[in-house]
Amino acid sequence: MSDMEQSDRLAKLQKEGHGAAGIFHEEARTHDKEVGYDSLLTIKELETEFPMLKFRYRKFLTKKEINKALQRIDKRLGQTLFVDNAEIRPDGGLIEVKDDNGRWRVVLVSEAKYQGKDIENISTGKLVGKNNDKDIMEAGNAIERAYKNISEIANFMLDEHYFPYVLFLEGSNFLTQNVTVVRPDGREVTLSYRDGRLNRLDRLTAANYGMPINTNLCKNSFIKCNDITIMLQAASIYTKGEGSTWNDEEIVKIMLDTAKTSLKVLASDIFEQLSKY
Amino acid sequence: MSDMEQSDRLAKLQKEGHGAAGIFHEEARTHDKEVGYDSLLTIKELETEFPMLKFRYRKFLTKKEINKALQRIDKRLGQTLFVDNAEIRPDGGLIEVKDDNGRWRVVLVSEAKYQGKDIENISTGKLVGKNNDKDIMEAGNAIERAYKNISEIANFMLDEHYFPYVLFLEGSNFLTQNVTVVRPDGREVTLSYRDGRLNRLDRLTAANYGMPINTNLCKNSFIKCNDITIMLQAASIYTKGEGSTWNDEEIVKIMLDTAKTSLKVLASDIFEQLSKY
Repeated sequence: MSDMEQSDRLAKLQKEGHGAAGIFHEEARTHDKEVGYDSLLTIKELETEFPMLKFRYRKFLTKKEINKALQRIDKRLGQTLFVDNAEIRPDGGLIEVKDDNGRWRVVLVSEAKYQGKDIENISTGKLVGKNNDKDIMEAGNAIERAYKNISEIANFMLDEHYFPYVLFLEGSNFLTQNVTVVRPDGREVTLSYRDGRLNRLDRLTAANYGMPINTNLCKNSFIKCNDITIMLQAASIYTKGEGSTWNDEEIVKIMLDTAKTSLKVLASDIFEQLSKY
Repeated sequence: MSDMEQSDRLAKLQKEGHGAAGIFHEEARTHDKEVGYDSLLTIKELETEFPMLKFRYRKFLTKKEINKALQRIDKRLGQTLFVDNAEIRPDGGLIEVKDDNGRWRVVLVSEAKYQGKDIENISTGKLVGKNNDKDIMEAGNAIERAYKNISEIANFMLDEHYFPYVLFLEGSNFLTQNVTVVRPDGREVTLSYRDGRLNRLDRLTAANYGMPINTNLCKNSFIKCNDITIMLQAASIYTKGEGSTWNDEEIVKIMLDTAKTSLKVLASDIFEQLSKY
């Protein structure tokens, strides 16, 4: 199917407010909620493109499941649990596919993080800082919490050869180019993407081993290193580097791209279903 | 050397306030600062026990160095840098040893995190919450930021077979047993370590693949998984599970244990120095 056809069908799906997705959208006022809605659009798309496969969506994964997956790989792992009902809830939830053995396999996990309101503040003329006399707010470090769920899913998928974790960033702390914003009084303020007070992308790039951002890294890399092979599970980090906001169509396109990469890596394990159709 | 001899010498070192270490201690009022001081005690100990080796201490590591290490392993890695002088500063800094080829190799990285003031609050009779009517404060999630530096150092040491990263936890959010605290009015409050409002250890255990806490995991595990070997870099997580506070002697003992494990794994690469003495 062409990108255009896909885009048309997505627009149609959104207009119709398809069932659960429609209900979901009514509460999707923030970027992190939006990816949950976009996951539902993505699963609809996958169901249309792959009618021979069974997909499911869920909002959380329990630590018990993660521990069980780790134990299956090696009995020394996944031993600790302090709070019985501990779980993780990635913003966009998880999409899974049923393999030929009836086991659910993850094909997409997504999170969305918004950090840095400088563009909004400057364009509305709001000054910031202790004395309300500064154009730019010193960026915070909350984004560093993103690693936790990345590590949890990496562990859950330690025996897979792909890692379909997508992080959608937006806000002035994630720029990849300089952005000039005009204040209501006409004064221009330029946000430099290399400014240490502003940019927080370097706080995230350990999650993809410093590989390019805005790139599908779903398929794991294997590197030779001192006689042994190391498998890298890299998060795919996408940012609105010019300071704009994500829309559903853009997000769903990236989600589909990632989910399809997962299906391709999993092809041997869904072969019966793919070929029986 | 026996544990007792070591402990005696540490006490002596502390009393004398050895040079830099002594100065450092004057500003070491908080747990996270304390591990910096303890690292200096540890390096003194290492210098005494291994006079044939050269050690150095430093407080930070630049992203440029991390990128260079990644590039040396594989040219696809370590490509991105947004803020030129980006760096990481683990609370306790880094201790390195010079190998036979003149390259500095990390033998210890430490961080210390304090979270949860419930024991203090209850014992002084302070009630908490919106209406100041609760014994226990709902725990926060700031601890999840700990993964960032763990990932950075794991990348920096991707070609090593050990991972000397030690995380020292203290506070009521990291209990491993129930703790009963008496209020000034005589009422007893029991903090349950399995209470989801209180315990945040499950937020950290992805960093050690759910292996036991309070355990030296410095030597990497290698596990067979679908025909390939996977190397696990697990952080060693130590907690004051009964709610007390760390003292220098306890911390230095664990630091030395970790650093010596590093030296043992590195033995072939420091063999010339070890055997020339």
